[in-house]
Amino acid sequence: MTVPVLLVLDADPPPRLGRLTGRARVVHTDEARLAARLPEADVLLVWDFTSTAVRRAWPGGGPRPRWVHTASAGVDHLMCAELAAGETVVTNARGVFEQPVAEYVAALVLAMAKDLPRTLDLQRERTWRHRETQRVAGTRACVVGSGPIGRAIARTLRALDVTTAIVGRVPRTGIHGPDDLDRLIARADWVVAAAPLTERTRGMFDARRFGVMQPSACFVNVGRGRLVVEEALAEALAKRWIAGAALDVFQDEPLGPDSPLWEAPGLIVSPHMSGDTVGWRDELGAQFVELYERWQAGRPLPNVVDKRLGYVPGH
Amino acid sequence: MTVPVLLVLDADPPPRLGRLTGRARVVHTDEARLAARLPEADVLLVWDFTSTAVRRAWPGGGPRPRWVHTASAGVDHLMCAELAAGETVVTNARGVFEQPVAEYVAALVLAMAKDLPRTLDLQRERTWRHRETQRVAGTRACVVGSGPIGRAIARTLRALDVTTAIVGRVPRTGIHGPDDLDRLIARADWVVAAAPLTERTRGMFDARRFGVMQPSACFVNVGRGRLVVEEALAEALAKRWIAGAALDVFQDEPLGPDSPLWEAPGLIVSPHMSGDTVGWRDELGAQFVELYERWQAGRPLPNVVDKRLGYVPGH
Repeated sequence: MTVPVLLVLDADPPPRLGRLTGRARVVHTDEARLAARLPEADVLLVWDFTSTAVRRAWPGGGPRPRWVHTASAGVDHLMCAELAAGETVVTNARGVFEQPVAEYVAALVLAMAKDLPRTLDLQRERTWRHRETQRVAGTRACVVGSGPIGRAIARTLRALDVTTAIVGRVPRTGIHGPDDLDRLIARADWVVAAAPLTERTRGMFDARRFGVMQPSACFVNVGRGRLVVEEALAEALAKRWIAGAALDVFQDEPLGPDSPLWEAPGLIVSPHMSGDTVGWRDELGAQFVELYERWQAGRPLPNVVDKRLGYVPGH
Repeated sequence: MTVPVLLVLDADPPPRLGRLTGRARVVHTDEARLAARLPEADVLLVWDFTSTAVRRAWPGGGPRPRWVHTASAGVDHLMCAELAAGETVVTNARGVFEQPVAEYVAALVLAMAKDLPRTLDLQRERTWRHRETQRVAGTRACVVGSGPIGRAIARTLRALDVTTAIVGRVPRTGIHGPDDLDRLIARADWVVAAAPLTERTRGMFDARRFGVMQPSACFVNVGRGRLVVEEALAEALAKRWIAGAALDVFQDEPLGPDSPLWEAPGLIVSPHMSGDTVGWRDELGAQFVELYERWQAGRPLPNVVDKRLGYVPGH
């Protein structure tokens, strides 16, 4: 039996791959050499999930890997028409990020409710200034995105007694469809974006949507930066259409030092880290090894992305 | 029937007392005139719960009010030997602060786990720096204080999948006794002080106790400032005996601008506001009116403080 070629897109070797010794011929590649190496690869592991090199390298001559796995929840960075049209199976890292992202959203919601950024500002000024803060229990959230991350966020917010609605692409039990979106965000205290980036979701949080929200509402994005029209959000904050926001993801990452978002009033900026708890790289490595063993044994793979939809459907 | 004299210790009139028109003769007093007015009062409402004037004014000649209500959970600011020994009934604001304080503790725990203060620092510097943060689910907390606030904190932390032990004065079902304290704080990721201030609890968080905690542990105090030896906490943080802390209450409040605590490494300072969500003054006012109506009708009062223990026992 020929040992399959496992092409890994990353400068640093992922952890745990040593377990595949003898079962995979591991070839590391950077972005520049990716296109040249794709035809020899049986499997592509996109470990550097910030790279869009796959999308650029995929259209090309020769055979393509039969399987692509990305160490991320979203697949927008690698999908292209040719990959979507072909036979290649794409899997993602479903299962690793749900709980961490949900906790991160709870941290942001509670920090905004309890005015924690202002407390830290006042601490720096050595100023004792009592304020009244918001009770979270009894407030309303709308989570946009009905995948496992969106549902984990809803579970965690409900555990804090926040009445939480979920909006997905297709209405089903416990999930609202897109037709309910405007009505739900108009009454929400917390609007949380946790949707995949697709042609349907790109730019969905625009000036109109921020205009629909309550002046007391806060907006959180832990999905993908391009779900949001950033200029519209900055304007909504400046004009106090909404009370606050927190972005963990951005149109362009890393956010450049000149971006006006760093100083937008009432905005918390964090560097795309909501899902990345201590040990996450190990978990991602172990998950890939497990999938590889299944693939090599000819068993069906979990976490298979619907390449037209742009995410793992059906849950 | 004589209309009872209701003495209110506060410069500002509490809300909702208008409902007692015709049923109480309301007399407002400041700290200076409190001692002179106590003998005429049937009821004393300690609305300014930051004041220790009752403790100083209580020992004195003439009759004392039959009932004292404080618009706070703790009663340490008003208790004195004479009040404890006498017939006067003391009630507190049990029921108003539990959920807000529990949420506030959750906000602090999540903020520390997710490194939010550092994120806000980096945002001010316009610096994008990814870090790995802590997963809260699966960690362990020890809540010191088994009253309604401590139990609400435990419920909220457990809702976030934190394994939470409660320590109280007397061991009972679901509550550990003081003998378990050192063992529990030695293995906790989060140690939360929510005990009343009594002779038994004063200074209980001292150098020895911070030394017992894990270097990765964080300490939170939402009880009373004097539960903590502040110099010992500052030293424990400076020497990295523990990883972080958050204090909402202090030995002396307001915390003076010269206090070294403002800049203690890894310490979040907030101005005694954990329980004070929007509408809290209305809630406290409405609660007092309800208790007054019961008292006037000769019905038993809830929230009666055991004056020797220093809190409402038995739940």
